Amino acid sequence: MKAIQYTRIGAEPEVTEIETPTPGPGEVLLKVTAAGVCHSDDFIMSLPEEQYVYGLPLTLGHEGAGTVVELGEGATGIEVGTNVVVYGPWGCGTCWQCAQGAENYCPRAAELGIRPPGLGAPGALAEYMIVDSPRHLVPIGDLDPVTTVPLTDAGLTPYHAIKRSLPKLRGGSTAVVIGSGGLGHVAIELLRHLSPARVVALDVSEEKLEFARSVGAHEAVLSDASAIETVRKITGPGGAALVLDFVGYQPTIDIAMGVAGTASDVTIVGLGDGVAHAKVGFGQTPFEATVTAPYWGSRSELIELIDLAHQGIFDIAVERFALDDGVEAYRRLAAGTLRGRAVIVP
Amino acid sequence: MKAIQYTRIGAEPEVTEIETPTPGPGEVLLKVTAAGVCHSDDFIMSLPEEQYVYGLPLTLGHEGAGTVVELGEGATGIEVGTNVVVYGPWGCGTCWQCAQGAENYCPRAAELGIRPPGLGAPGALAEYMIVDSPRHLVPIGDLDPVTTVPLTDAGLTPYHAIKRSLPKLRGGSTAVVIGSGGLGHVAIELLRHLSPARVVALDVSEEKLEFARSVGAHEAVLSDASAIETVRKITGPGGAALVLDFVGYQPTIDIAMGVAGTASDVTIVGLGDGVAHAKVGFGQTPFEATVTAPYWGSRSELIELIDLAHQGIFDIAVERFALDDGVEAYRRLAAGTLRGRAVIVP
Amino acid sequence: MKAIQYTRIGAEPEVTEIETPTPGPGEVLLKVTAAGVCHSDDFIMSLPEEQYVYGLPLTLGHEGAGTVVELGEGATGIEVGTNVVVYGPWGCGTCWQCAQGAENYCPRAAELGIRPPGLGAPGALAEYMIVDSPRHLVPIGDLDPVTTVPLTDAGLTPYHAIKRSLPKLRGGSTAVVIGSGGLGHVAIELLRHLSPARVVALDVSEEKLEFARSVGAHEAVLSDASAIETVRKITGPGGAALVLDFVGYQPTIDIAMGVAGTASDVTIVGLGDGVAHAKVGFGQTPFEATVTAPYWGSRSELIELIDLAHQGIFDIAVERFALDDGVEAYRRLAAGTLRGRAVIVP
Amino acid sequence: MKAIQYTRIGAEPEVTEIETPTPGPGEVLLKVTAAGVCHSDDFIMSLPEEQYVYGLPLTLGHEGAGTVVELGEGATGIEVGTNVVVYGPWGCGTCWQCAQGAENYCPRAAELGIRPPGLGAPGALAEYMIVDSPRHLVPIGDLDPVTTVPLTDAGLTPYHAIKRSLPKLRGGSTAVVIGSGGLGHVAIELLRHLSPARVVALDVSEEKLEFARSVGAHEAVLSDASAIETVRKITGPGGAALVLDFVGYQPTIDIAMGVAGTASDVTIVGLGDGVAHAKVGFGQTPFEATVTAPYWGSRSELIELIDLAHQGIFDIAVERFALDDGVEAYRRLAAGTLRGRAVIVP
Repeated sequence: MKAIQYTRIGAEPEVTEIETPTPGPGEVLLKVTAAGVCHSDDFIMSLPEEQYVYGLPLTLGHEGAGTVVELGEGATGIEVGTNVVVYGPWGCGTCWQCAQGAENYCPRAAELGIRPPGLGAPGALAEYMIVDSPRHLVPIGDLDPVTTVPLTDAGLTPYHAIKRSLPKLRGGSTAVVIGSGGLGHVAIELLRHLSPARVVALDVSEEKLEFARSVGAHEAVLSDASAIETVRKITGPGGAALVLDFVGYQPTIDIAMGVAGTASDVTIVGLGDGVAHAKVGFGQTPFEATVTAPYWGSRSELIELIDLAHQGIFDIAVERFALDDGVEAYRRLAAGTLRGRAVIVP
Repeated sequence: MKAIQYTRIGAEPEVTEIETPTPGPGEVLLKVTAAGVCHSDDFIMSLPEEQYVYGLPLTLGHEGAGTVVELGEGATGIEVGTNVVVYGPWGCGTCWQCAQGAENYCPRAAELGIRPPGLGAPGALAEYMIVDSPRHLVPIGDLDPVTTVPLTDAGLTPYHAIKRSLPKLRGGSTAVVIGSGGLGHVAIELLRHLSPARVVALDVSEEKLEFARSVGAHEAVLSDASAIETVRKITGPGGAALVLDFVGYQPTIDIAMGVAGTASDVTIVGLGDGVAHAKVGFGQTPFEATVTAPYWGSRSELIELIDLAHQGIFDIAVERFALDDGVEAYRRLAAGTLRGRAVIVP
Repeated sequence: MKAIQYTRIGAEPEVTEIETPTPGPGEVLLKVTAAGVCHSDDFIMSLPEEQYVYGLPLTLGHEGAGTVVELGEGATGIEVGTNVVVYGPWGCGTCWQCAQGAENYCPRAAELGIRPPGLGAPGALAEYMIVDSPRHLVPIGDLDPVTTVPLTDAGLTPYHAIKRSLPKLRGGSTAVVIGSGGLGHVAIELLRHLSPARVVALDVSEEKLEFARSVGAHEAVLSDASAIETVRKITGPGGAALVLDFVGYQPTIDIAMGVAGTASDVTIVGLGDGVAHAKVGFGQTPFEATVTAPYWGSRSELIELIDLAHQGIFDIAVERFALDDGVEAYRRLAAGTLRGRAVIVP
Repeated sequence: MKAIQYTRIGAEPEVTEIETPTPGPGEVLLKVTAAGVCHSDDFIMSLPEEQYVYGLPLTLGHEGAGTVVELGEGATGIEVGTNVVVYGPWGCGTCWQCAQGAENYCPRAAELGIRPPGLGAPGALAEYMIVDSPRHLVPIGDLDPVTTVPLTDAGLTPYHAIKRSLPKLRGGSTAVVIGSGGLGHVAIELLRHLSPARVVALDVSEEKLEFARSVGAHEAVLSDASAIETVRKITGPGGAALVLDFVGYQPTIDIAMGVAGTASDVTIVGLGDGVAHAKVGFGQTPFEATVTAPYWGSRSELIELIDLAHQGIFDIAVERFALDDGVEAYRRLAAGTLRGRAVIVP
């Protein structure tokens, strides 16, 4: 079968021909119907050899959707023919975190050599993929896999980040979303449907601000030198109740801290350049503003997201590419010329 | 191998010789080290044929501990030789509830024919038992399986019931435990270690009250006609913040409702005679007193319980029986002459 | 000044001329701009003498809005000229419940002789009213007092009931609202703005169902003998996550229990006939369905509601009456011919 | 009457003779029975004139206990003769935060000129003090005011910090307390009574570690260069679930971040030198470790603390000083030679 693989440190990904896998005991074989292309793929392919831990060649793709075509021995709870999306942050399945579905925080995964598909295990950018357990599949019924597959990461990550802060998003409160791209625009849609908060989006161009407004932001503000002042005029002296930074560079983190209110949540999602940080301390930050950097989401949260998709709350912007054009998708991603999420349709 | 089975509607359980099972794909074979005997076994054996849905012959035992002796193909995440207890309320493993470990509330289990061991699937009252998935095992290290095995039901059920009410158990609050038997005495120990609440136990004899005090109850009160008045003198006019009824007959439920305070939790755990109920309604009950009847507990809660056991907080009262004496254990259970939990040690 | 008073057990309320009050130390005098007429007024006027504890003559009106016209000595934190609504369930202000603003559950109010305006203290159905403390006032800015005043009870009561259940109202879940009248229609609007739940309304006529749909219900169902079956078809086998009963008669409570799902909340708000009740018990109800009957709401919740009103989420149906026509308003209320809330505008 | 006042920028506090105050409308006059001396007094007296905003002369003392001797007009809800402690972080009493008792986060206090006693308003280091409202008093019954008065700050601050993290302190988890002084030793006692967590204390001398063990720490570790490694050996690879830093200098904050686990809470309470900060960011910190710097606590939390004191859970270390020896108490505080909290007993 065809696959898009990262084969050599520093090289571009390439389309390769590899053997179609067969499912072992407990495993599931999917015929891939859609697979998302993500900034974090770029990030790992930019790593020098000594930091790269994902194996070579690596079949890319940690956002996957497909149809169940074969069940390994003992794989139960799912039927052949079911349309599914794949929960990506695989864990051991038995520890305390995994017992609650928080496999994204499994402390045993690394030691047991368990890695997400596309980030160690063979990913979804191929005609077929192996999923290690039926528990990592969520049926999607008649939802379009192409617009649904981004929910597995670009949807699940902001949903997890937002869900923990929902009790703070009362009437009259403000949620600030920095970066209205792949994850940010889903965050805006989620905030509008899950809370009564006023949603303020920040981004770097008038075009992106217009996009933010079109997916539901009440206000959209240029993230320039006066951004903190502008946002604070909107929030009033109380500041924002939640700030989500989907960029994660030092300037955006500084804006995040600058608009946060007392007892607010500042949640840093963007990978940024890997050294940006928020400063928290007595007299440095509003009282009890809590700052955190979460990672992906839990199994039950992905199920909840698919339920929300069935309610029709999402309008996910995607550009479709054939498997053969996958390399081009990565080039467009790197160049910043994509409108929405790039999705490969084999 | 030997097993204790319920073989005929209305008959006593009996010791039988059956084939030692072998684990299929994804399954685990345990050499049983301890198995608890429970009132709910009695309950199902008292059902008339038309209500009995657990299959015959039924190997009893839904509280199990053992050593992993063989892994089926594809069963991962646990090692041969590990000492474990078994999480009993098996679910499908993939639905929203199961994705959070709340397999006790799996809505698909019934339709898929999934039943707990000892309550449909072959149970722990045997020399060996099959566990359907490694996710249903919790390692116990060097804990004694005999005093640990009751935690899987007699511990997990009260732990689940208590955990949801912990935010109400502030300093100065009162928790009332009705019935200080198998589950009740664990509840008292849990309440003392997890909260600062004053713990008031109710039971029917001075001997049982003395036992309740010995495991940590601050006060112990006879559950007679003046029980409500006596408890209300202890709680003050505010009433109790939590009432746990481990009996579930109409008189105990009436006491539970009678001592509950505003915005309290009344939690009915005991099976009672299956028709007892609490009346809730405007003007009938203290404002916002919430009444509920939960069932068993979640996977992560069992892991937390085993962690608590490692901290040495439990003093679980047990009487040991050999497998050959299992029928006698059930007789003693029915007669009410057991001191603590009956545990079969094969 | 003019007032509408209940002057004699069993009589109709009447318009009287009484002395305009002056504020004592710590008190605030309001010129009333709007006052709501409520079923619970009817309820207390229907009580026989031996159960009636609200004093005579009683100036009615526990939903009040006004303009601050005079401050008693030491009354601080509010300015003369401010437009406000009145928080009704006055408590002592110092106990644990009041320290969190849950004055609706103050355990000391009764012993200290503190009663809500219109339910013991002189109420809002007058040209002027005394509020005992600035803490019981919430500024409303330029909101219309006539459509805002029902929020103090007909809004606050459902908001409090809903807020505690919001964590259960995830995507794909269902909230059932029984009774789409004064409180119920606000509940529907709140559910739509605060949660992604599907909202199913029940009522007794096609006209009321149409009204429920017009304020946001996704589905509206006749509360007849097949109501449980019809609702369960909508919810699927999982049942509803939240059921709010704004009627509280035995038939509606029975429907509420019949459509509730595992681990759901059943919340009985309606006064009904004072003896209706829900039965909760093992085997009687879905596992961990919690049943409760709350009362009114907290101070911070009323502030949150006013913030929501500023966001324009409410469309409160009201009929206006002059103070002189207040008796007619009560007649219309009793006859069930009001469209929405009756509001007296002095 | 005598008072201890800060009279001149940079000078030592001194004993002065001032007029005994009389309560205005709504106010309460206390005869002071005990008053605590705190590091933050030192902090404000160290400020240069341009940063000092608390007024001169300032009667010190934000931890106060006393007996109610006179009520101003309209001051209700408390009786003359009642023994009380004073809730210190006074707010406006009417805003959203104050409506929940979180007056410590009142956004209007500054603009309205409302300041805590001893930090702007006349404090408790005097024979008598004025409290602005009965809502700022908590009755203590027969508790000793001398050992109870530190609970108003040295108890309330750690209680607030701990309470928000209690859901994370399950069996098998670890709580780390950095600094076992005035606030830290109360934190250790609270953690032992409110949670099953293992408590690890860090401090700078073997004597202080021994003290930490004596008040309940399971382990006590020198906060030297190997502290992170030592603590991680105790916690295991999962790290701590809660880290409380009562010091707040850069080295202790660095330790706090170094021992925090995934999804943990890092709570910075100590004032430190005012510039220390924690760095939070993707790849900088464990996933979803949340960092925050709270301030003091809420009204209901102080009531809960007094309830815990009645249960006898505290052993508060104090040194008593007469009012005339108050200056000496401040000298001993600055020199670091106090054993426990300095309490002035007029």
